[in-house]
Amino acid sequence: MPLMMKTFVSLVLLCAGAAQAQESADLIVSAAQVVTMDAKRRVIDNGAVAVRGGRILAVGPRAEIDKAYKAKQRIDQPEALIAPGLVNTHTHAAMSLLRGLADDKPLQEWLEKYIFPAEAKNVTPEFVRWGTRLAMLEMMLSGTTTYTDMYYFEDEVAQATKEAGMRGVLGQTIIGFPAPDYKTPQEALAATEKFIAKWKNDPLITPAVAPHAVYTNEEATLRAARELADKHGVPLLIHVSETQLENTSTHAKTGSSPTFYLSRIGGIAKRTVFAHGVWMGVRDRQTARQFNVGVAHCPSSNMKMASGVLPVLEFLRFGIPVGLGPDGPAGSNNDFNMFEEMDLAAKLAKSMNFDPQALPAATVVEMATIMGARVLGMEEQIGSLEAGKRADLITVSLAEPHAFPRHDPYSMLVYSLKGSDVRDVVIEGRVTVRDRKPLTLNRAEILAKAAELRAKVDASLREGKP
Amino acid sequence: MPLMMKTFVSLVLLCAGAAQAQESADLIVSAAQVVTMDAKRRVIDNGAVAVRGGRILAVGPRAEIDKAYKAKQRIDQPEALIAPGLVNTHTHAAMSLLRGLADDKPLQEWLEKYIFPAEAKNVTPEFVRWGTRLAMLEMMLSGTTTYTDMYYFEDEVAQATKEAGMRGVLGQTIIGFPAPDYKTPQEALAATEKFIAKWKNDPLITPAVAPHAVYTNEEATLRAARELADKHGVPLLIHVSETQLENTSTHAKTGSSPTFYLSRIGGIAKRTVFAHGVWMGVRDRQTARQFNVGVAHCPSSNMKMASGVLPVLEFLRFGIPVGLGPDGPAGSNNDFNMFEEMDLAAKLAKSMNFDPQALPAATVVEMATIMGARVLGMEEQIGSLEAGKRADLITVSLAEPHAFPRHDPYSMLVYSLKGSDVRDVVIEGRVTVRDRKPLTLNRAEILAKAAELRAKVDASLREGKP
Repeated sequence: MPLMMKTFVSLVLLCAGAAQAQESADLIVSAAQVVTMDAKRRVIDNGAVAVRGGRILAVGPRAEIDKAYKAKQRIDQPEALIAPGLVNTHTHAAMSLLRGLADDKPLQEWLEKYIFPAEAKNVTPEFVRWGTRLAMLEMMLSGTTTYTDMYYFEDEVAQATKEAGMRGVLGQTIIGFPAPDYKTPQEALAATEKFIAKWKNDPLITPAVAPHAVYTNEEATLRAARELADKHGVPLLIHVSETQLENTSTHAKTGSSPTFYLSRIGGIAKRTVFAHGVWMGVRDRQTARQFNVGVAHCPSSNMKMASGVLPVLEFLRFGIPVGLGPDGPAGSNNDFNMFEEMDLAAKLAKSMNFDPQALPAATVVEMATIMGARVLGMEEQIGSLEAGKRADLITVSLAEPHAFPRHDPYSMLVYSLKGSDVRDVVIEGRVTVRDRKPLTLNRAEILAKAAELRAKVDASLREGKP
Repeated sequence: MPLMMKTFVSLVLLCAGAAQAQESADLIVSAAQVVTMDAKRRVIDNGAVAVRGGRILAVGPRAEIDKAYKAKQRIDQPEALIAPGLVNTHTHAAMSLLRGLADDKPLQEWLEKYIFPAEAKNVTPEFVRWGTRLAMLEMMLSGTTTYTDMYYFEDEVAQATKEAGMRGVLGQTIIGFPAPDYKTPQEALAATEKFIAKWKNDPLITPAVAPHAVYTNEEATLRAARELADKHGVPLLIHVSETQLENTSTHAKTGSSPTFYLSRIGGIAKRTVFAHGVWMGVRDRQTARQFNVGVAHCPSSNMKMASGVLPVLEFLRFGIPVGLGPDGPAGSNNDFNMFEEMDLAAKLAKSMNFDPQALPAATVVEMATIMGARVLGMEEQIGSLEAGKRADLITVSLAEPHAFPRHDPYSMLVYSLKGSDVRDVVIEGRVTVRDRKPLTLNRAEILAKAAELRAKVDASLREGKP
């Protein structure tokens, strides 16, 4: 266009820029690409996210965000992408201290000779506090911002999680035999109600009721657990149909599958997460759909323990939300890496269905973000980068050789990028990891404590052996 | 013991120490633990490896090594373990430039609509040179010291590999249609003989003959390839029974399985590596055993392409050596990470055999080291840390949270440690990576070239599209 016109246009733009007053933001994060996972699944090149008061103010092209907002703090990663923080829908964090305690062992021997004795002798509030911190350190450094826990002394877990500034759906375990924390289900149920009352209004902590499983609890306990969950509108977390043995024994005892049994006795709450679900059948899926149950798929754990393979596609076809979980690291996985669960979920589904198109990368990223949030009944708060949502996000480096040449971001997130590529982590608007440096957890202290506590575990297992 | 005795002992030790003259070494690498993979599978705490002239002088406790040897260069990693460099038994390095070109696509569409056209239009000596460098950068940074390649312009691959100081078993492709480098199998065979003559005495490069597969070559070509391999005592690399379709079509055409067909026509050389072998049956395994064939297991690729699952245990029971390979990153995997192949191989075997004891971690580490070397017919040179062998080793950090608490080293290598934990890489006694910094490859230049060449590929695929 002619010079005069050019000048005129730039003047107008200049005025427009000057005219518009900038809103203030606490933090602006900018990067080469923003994978929003919003309803339109927008992927924004040279994008940015503005954050204030723990929530997302706006997501858009960097230029627009910079024009509209003035931030106190800035994270700029020109060689990275921004994604929603990853959502872990099933784990046992404090078992980090039992990592690799008994690998390559059959489930029963693993449980009875190693895990149960080790837990009975070692699981104390201190063990849980430090084990949870070790797990959170690893989870944050590999991009997880929300995790779903089932363990003992869950109030310790909640305190440690709150201190670390991480988001947790934390289920106090209720189990039909004397546990490290409570000797009876009744004690556990009473304590769980106090636990819920204490944490239910916390912005980071979602307390939950966690009856361990059908085969480890009485009918009355399972019903009471559901009533407690619904009374307070909190999630109910339970292991369901993880192994074939669980199904056959439940059938023998109750005449029903674990899922149908739970539905029959009133054991399914309004917000319920089934962990594993490997051996759920068609009728179980119908029941799960009807009761609006979410499922936590744990590919590493199910493969390593040879529990079977969850037919993910069948669940998705039924409209059942399926999230991902690394489960516990004590033999059933050995790490908390959601990038590995994504890669494994995609490859396992293709292999099991003899179809390379099964469970494409974009669907797997959904499972690790917005669909995982739906599993937890939190899709209004987390799981995507949208104005008004909680500010939970990660930056993932695109500078490593395995990220070259650049291609489809979903494909990269699932098949090429690693947990070790995560650079920054923001949870509830707070920067918890900056350029791989944890800001809310004392790395050196945690690793030293882990070594110390594990030495005790190993000693306790040696006791009474020839 | 009494003080006098103590003094006496220390005096003796002192004299012993003084008396013994120290031998000179080029390099001593010391760490918290040395995983030797020697015949006794020794794991040495506070161990060290002394290196001279590209070979291992000694492996032992740090104190003994330091007493016996004086080194010009020292690598000390008190928070790491030392392992043999990982051996990749099947890959297509230069396809790194096609990474993620067509994910989640059916094999035929993937090949015919994307890979073959992209290769026909783009695979030049320059493409191969830079693609191989990108792949080597990623391979070294994730602990691979020897890789097995099947591609075009293999002399370019050999030059780039030699420059980078990496060890390669490099197979010039021979295929029954016009390829990017040679228009006929006859041309390719003639060029391959020159290629072999040029490189056969190189300490790093093992030239190989690589007829692509049974279904892409005539009988005469396959026989000529075998004769060429045996004439020069080099390996023959070939894709065998990767897909069920390959088996059925070969049966229809020849009345035999690919394996039996090759054995019948004289297509199996003294050193032969079958890539994939997914659909080999019992009789095929008998044949492979009888002909001393090694197999490259590619779990990521077979799962992602839904090709099927190699029954690894059946091969090991037959005494067939099985190594690991990431295959190519253009849809069939997306990276070159041997740590992920180890993790996947272990979990897949357990899941497929309904047995958590199947393929224990120690066996998987064998497959990635000494057994992989046996697959290549190189077990006398590489695959374990023993005096007299080529000095190919890696240090792997034990300082990351996922490595805490410490436990069985094989279990850690397979289930917890990552490619990103690799700190140093030594190949033929030369330090090629130091504290994650590549010393023999220009990282920035390679990544820039990768982006540039991929842009050309994408443009070439857009051509002639509406």
